[in-house]
Parts: sequence; C-alpha cells; structure tokens
Amino acid sequence: MHTFPDYLIDGYRNFMTGRYSSERERYRVLADNGQQPKTLVIACCDSRAAPEMIFDSGPGELFVVRNVANMVPPYEPDGTYHSTSAALEFAVQSLRVKDIVVMGHGRCGGIRAALDPNAEPLSPGDFIGKWMGLVSAAAEQIQMNDVMTPGERQTALERVSIRNSISNLRTFPCVRILEERGKINLHGAWFDISTGELWVMDGKTGDFQRPQV
Amino acid sequence: MHTFPDYLIDGYRNFMTGRYSSERERYRVLADNGQQPKTLVIACCDSRAAPEMIFDSGPGELFVVRNVANMVPPYEPDGTYHSTSAALEFAVQSLRVKDIVVMGHGRCGGIRAALDPNAEPLSPGDFIGKWMGLVSAAAEQIQMNDVMTPGERQTALERVSIRNSISNLRTFPCVRILEERGKINLHGAWFDISTGELWVMDGKTGDFQRPQV
Amino acid sequence: MHTFPDYLIDGYRNFMTGRYSSERERYRVLADNGQQPKTLVIACCDSRAAPEMIFDSGPGELFVVRNVANMVPPYEPDGTYHSTSAALEFAVQSLRVKDIVVMGHGRCGGIRAALDPNAEPLSPGDFIGKWMGLVSAAAEQIQMNDVMTPGERQTALERVSIRNSISNLRTFPCVRILEERGKINLHGAWFDISTGELWVMDGKTGDFQRPQV
Amino acid sequence: MHTFPDYLIDGYRNFMTGRYSSERERYRVLADNGQQPKTLVIACCDSRAAPEMIFDSGPGELFVVRNVANMVPPYEPDGTYHSTSAALEFAVQSLRVKDIVVMGHGRCGGIRAALDPNAEPLSPGDFIGKWMGLVSAAAEQIQMNDVMTPGERQTALERVSIRNSISNLRTFPCVRILEERGKINLHGAWFDISTGELWVMDGKTGDFQRPQV
Repeated sequence: MHTFPDYLIDGYRNFMTGRYSSERERYRVLADNGQQPKTLVIACCDSRAAPEMIFDSGPGELFVVRNVANMVPPYEPDGTYHSTSAALEFAVQSLRVKDIVVMGHGRCGGIRAALDPNAEPLSPGDFIGKWMGLVSAAAEQIQMNDVMTPGERQTALERVSIRNSISNLRTFPCVRILEERGKINLHGAWFDISTGELWVMDGKTGDFQRPQV
Repeated sequence: MHTFPDYLIDGYRNFMTGRYSSERERYRVLADNGQQPKTLVIACCDSRAAPEMIFDSGPGELFVVRNVANMVPPYEPDGTYHSTSAALEFAVQSLRVKDIVVMGHGRCGGIRAALDPNAEPLSPGDFIGKWMGLVSAAAEQIQMNDVMTPGERQTALERVSIRNSISNLRTFPCVRILEERGKINLHGAWFDISTGELWVMDGKTGDFQRPQV
Repeated sequence: MHTFPDYLIDGYRNFMTGRYSSERERYRVLADNGQQPKTLVIACCDSRAAPEMIFDSGPGELFVVRNVANMVPPYEPDGTYHSTSAALEFAVQSLRVKDIVVMGHGRCGGIRAALDPNAEPLSPGDFIGKWMGLVSAAAEQIQMNDVMTPGERQTALERVSIRNSISNLRTFPCVRILEERGKINLHGAWFDISTGELWVMDGKTGDFQRPQV
Repeated sequence: MHTFPDYLIDGYRNFMTGRYSSERERYRVLADNGQQPKTLVIACCDSRAAPEMIFDSGPGELFVVRNVANMVPPYEPDGTYHSTSAALEFAVQSLRVKDIVVMGHGRCGGIRAALDPNAEPLSPGDFIGKWMGLVSAAAEQIQMNDVMTPGERQTALERVSIRNSISNLRTFPCVRILEERGKINLHGAWFDISTGELWVMDGKTGDFQRPQV
C-alpha cells in the first residue's frame, strides 16, 4: 500500500527536535497524570484556524472539537451517536473544563455553502447540506436580505452561528446547571484569517469586539 | 456576563507578535485564495495530541476533524446530521485532499471508557457511551482477554480503532472510488504521548511501526 | 566420520586472536576461581537473539539458559528430569545469582507455532507442541481475537509468555523466598530483532517500555 | 518493583552503538526473512562458555540450546514437555540445520556435581540431581576409578557426556534418518576455559584432539 507522506514525517522530525525536545518532561507528566485542560474549544476544521496556533497553546491546555463551521447541535438524547455532543459531555463531565469557547472564523466554507442558494449536494449523501441545516433558519433570513453585501452576509451568519451554538450548549442539562452555579463559562470568538484579528463576543449583548491586547 | 479568559488573550498576543507577525503575508494569501490543504487529519480532541503540533504544520496545511477517539463512523446517508461525515465529504469533494490520516494516540480517554466494563454513563444522555459504540464489538473481544495488561489492551484497541475507522472511510463511495483511482491515499498513525514517538500503520498488514526519522 | 565444520574453526581462530588474546588473564582467573555470574538469563534458542550480544557481555557475566521461546515451566518436583528447572536451581542455589531476566524477542518461531491454529506436529513426538503447551491457554485467548493483526497477536503472546514465565519462577520456593527477602530480583525484557530495540517490563504493571538509553 | 539492572542497560547501549550500529541492515533482513542458521549448538549455561564468543558468531548463525552440562536426553515421546527435545525438533525439522554440535567445556559445575559422592540436593526438588542422572551410570564408573586424579576424572566425564549426548541424538528418528542420508552431521567439541583451547571429537574414535588452527 501507500507509505506515510514524507511531508508529515518531515514535520514530525521538526517536532521531535523542536517542541518535543524542549518539553519532553511536560509530555511525560501529561502522560502519567492524564490531561487536565481547563478549556474546551469548539473550532472549525479549516486549515487556517487551528486554535492552538491562534492561542499559542501548549500540550495539555486545550481540549478541541473540530467540525465544519464549529457548530454545537442541540441536546438530542436519542439512540444514535453524536460526535460533538459526546466530546462536550466528556469535556464537561469527565475533564470538568471551566471555559467553553465556540470559535468561529472568517471565510468559512461551511457558512458560505449554507448561504449559497444554488448549492448542490457535494455527494448523494449530502452530509454537508444536512450538517449546515443546523443554521438553515438563520441562513434563510440572511439570504433574503439584499442590502448587505455577500461579505457582510457571510460574516453575519458566522457570528449568528456562534451565538446559535452557545444557545445549543445551554440545552445540555449539565452545561446549563454548571453555568448557573458559576462553575463553567461560555464564550464566543471569531478569528479574521486575513488580518489575524481576534474578535470576542460580549456575553450580554452578543456583539463581537476586539479585545485590548 | 463573563469576560474572555485572560490566558487565551495572552496566548493570542503571543501569536500576533510571533507566528502571525512572521507569516502575515501567508495568512493574507490564504484568506484571499482560500484554503487548499492536501491533507485531512481525523484526530482526537485530546489536549496532548494536536496534529499541528505533532506534524509541525503551518496555516493552510491540515484540514482537521477532531472528535473523541478520532473515529470515522460508517457511511449512513440517512436524514440526520453527521458531523464527521460532513467534514469528510467537504474535505474530499470540495477541497479534494490527497491524503487522509486517521491519527490515534496513547492513553486515549475515550478508548479507556470503551474498555471499562464498569463504565457508567457520564450523563443521562450517555453520548460518550453511544459514540464509543462504534468500537464496542472490538472492545468486547479485547476486554475478554485477561492475559494482556490493561495498558496492552488499551494500546491494542487504540490501534484496532484506527483500522476500523479506515475501513469505515472506505464505506463512503467518494473515498472508495478515489482511492481505487489512486487519487487519494488513506493512512493510519498513532502518537505515544509519553515518549513522543510516532508510529505509522503499514497499509498492507495493519501493523504499526516507527518510521525512520 | 565427518570433520568439524570449517566455518566454526575459522570463527574459533578469530576468537583466539581477538577476544581471547586480549582477555587471556580474565579467562585464567575465571577458570581458577570458578564462575560468579550475578545474572541468570532465560533466553530463546533463536540465532538472532543471543543475550551476550544484546547486553555486550563478557566471559563470566551471564549464566544463560536457552530453550525455545525462553520459557520457565512451573515448579514440578516429580521424579523426572527438567532441564530448565535444573539450571534455575543451580543458578539460584549454587551460584546465588542476584538478577533473573526472562528475555523474549520478536518474531519468535515457537510463539508463532503456538498461535497457528493449523500447526501440525513437526515430528511424531510433537515435542514443540507439548513444550509450547506451557502457553496454550494464553494462546487460545489471543487466537480468538480477530481484530488484532497477526503481528500484534504475536507480540502480545511473546509478552504474555514472559509474564507467564516470571509467574512460574515464583512457584519455585527458593525463588519466591529469596525474592521476598530482597535477595533476588526478577525482570522481563523483550528484544525487537528488526529494530534492535530493547523493551523492559515494568514489574508492577507488566507493561513493556523502552528504557532511557 | 525493581528496575532493570543498570549494568545490562549499559551493555545494551554498547550493543546499539557497536555491533547493532554496524549490522543494522543484517538485523533487518534477518527479521524480515526469518532466521536460517545452519548450525544447532547444544551448550552449557556456564557464563564462561558462550558458543557465540568461542566461534565468534554473528546474528543468525547459531541456533543455541543451553542447559546445565550441555546434555541431550534420549528420545522420550511421552505426554510431558521436554525443553531440549523440543528445541532439537525445531532446529532439525523446521530450520533444517546441517550441523549439530554438542559443546562441552572444562570445570563444568554440573559434571562436578555428578561426580561428587557427597553431593546434597540443592533444594527439596533436587532438579540438578535428577538432570545429572542422565550421566549417572558413567559417573559411577568413573567415581570408582581411584587411579585418575579428580581433575582427570572430571575431564573424562565431561567428554564421556558429550559422546553420550551424541548417542542420544541418534535415538531421535529424525536425526538418525537425516544423518544416514548425509543431510545432517553430528559433532562434539570441548572448550578449555583456562587455556582457551578448543578440542574437537573424532567422529570415528570418539577421541578429542586440538584441530589445526
């Protein structure tokens, strides 16, 4: 069969001689004691928006779910498997994280697809179409708005979707209860790939602003 | 409401003065032209096993799905949303990645839960229990083996699960067809958090070995 | 009859002009004073895994039993002769070794035979079949597991067998008593012929890990 | 529990930087292709008489059984396990070795025990006593001889025992048949620890002589 890609082996070599070499002991302790991240980040799969890069995080710091368009579905305790809900449950109940960050970004391909009235299914299964259905009601409203530019509509839905996911987080009993008790905090953030700007959500108003850095 | 965590703002400041500062142009181009990663990595949410760290990857290189225990479910084109399948479809059909890497790691909490005969649901929804059901048949076989140590059983299931996910990848028509045409390659990898070792799967035998680095 | 093989005479000539020549005095002292090895190694007959090579040992250092698959049978003080038990008794009671190492290795032909469900007796006496019966219960458990690869099952049984032999060592009263008194230590090791890696057993968990070298 | 002995780890480090480093490829090929030794050596456990040292052998050359006093028991296809017979069967029937060498040596502790009329069992199991029973008839004859010195009696029994083992080898049908067909050759050798001299047996007379080196 195929051999492992050379460019990944090259990168791994850099890791071993670089970060691993200088943090060997930290990895060993993290292996022996287990991970104890205090943060869950729900981020997008996008290759330009890895949360460890944006937050310059080291091993053991961020427990990270990545799906298309960084979405959290609502609480649905049915019989089937739910990837994101499982990760959420594990982070909250087993790892007892203190902060949950829903982390969106500009130029998101999933959000673009959700706003495209002519979008065709990518495959007969239409998995993207169904997944983006999580924001279809909001997408329809924004699509009808013809006074905003396409760019503005995209940024708008990216941020609406973050608020939507935070609302869905609160449909999970464990999240809602822990937030009420002050044990867990929910946050929104949006990263502008083009400028490197981080915008964070005001928990009260839902507005996004650039923090003082 | 709550303010954005200081430690994340601090990390973001490091990013801006560090990597972003030296790769400002790369981010701008990636924003203007869109991402063109040639690799999809399906990795675990674990805070100790970020694929960008292990492969020392820069922005635009890896399209990354992260769920508990880095699993791919089988092709199920039903009416509901599937987070991982949607990301897979997007990576293969829209981004046209060339390599798909299923990336497991040692001391995986999800795999440990799957092997624990006394595991209780973490919440009434039991999302982890249902999600880990994707490897329950293999877990049962390995649980029955009482001559291997708990550590050996865990490593065994971590690797079985990678092969299982690669088999499931091939149930997606788009993956199977593109692999047959030589347009896409499937890989397995397993990262040892304690030692920093990367083990890669032999596509023919399914065995894991350390590559020459 | 036949003359002694030339290639062995050639090797002996190398020994005389090489190691013997530089260690002549050491051999003389070892002959006069008798051997006083502090280590018993139970190793496999395999031509690729001589313990003196792997541990770079000189004359007088290792007292070495070698049988197929480096096994120790349980204590059976019946009327018949037992090759390995006799050597163990001699090493512990007469030579008073301090360390006992059960030394396994990868790609062991005896272990492979034990895992082969279609293995035929090599001769009417079926000596290998009976000898490998010492691990047949473990082999059956591992054979039933069809989610691990043949290579993984082989490595698993190689390591299980080492732990099994260490357990059997403790059925010998002299070993058990001396270990309890801290006079003797039991160790497991596994050598990877392909990579040259040595893995040593954690006495507490039974897991094998590579030592810091 | 106890950690692996430092002196063995030190030796292993020497092996890795020495022989393994210069024969890396040979080990890899031996791992991939399997061992194909053409020689079975039945040697003593004695720490001063490792056959790989005396014959300066490399990996893959000698398949080595080591028991106390390098003995081969007679063919006994009963229901129990026989360590040496199993190794013999494996070497002859599976590996198809061409030469079998019974390799004795001077100052053998097992032979000394067999000649000691006051020898006490080393433990209640008396495994050495039973094992050396394989040469007890010869030992009794030699013990009665009071004109030879103790040293001469010991050398005598060491050599008688080698001839005895070669006779026992011929009780195994597979050995006898292959020897008759000229497919396998049986040899005796005796190593003098004190002087480094190798003596080889004349297959016709049974006498031991030093070969031309």
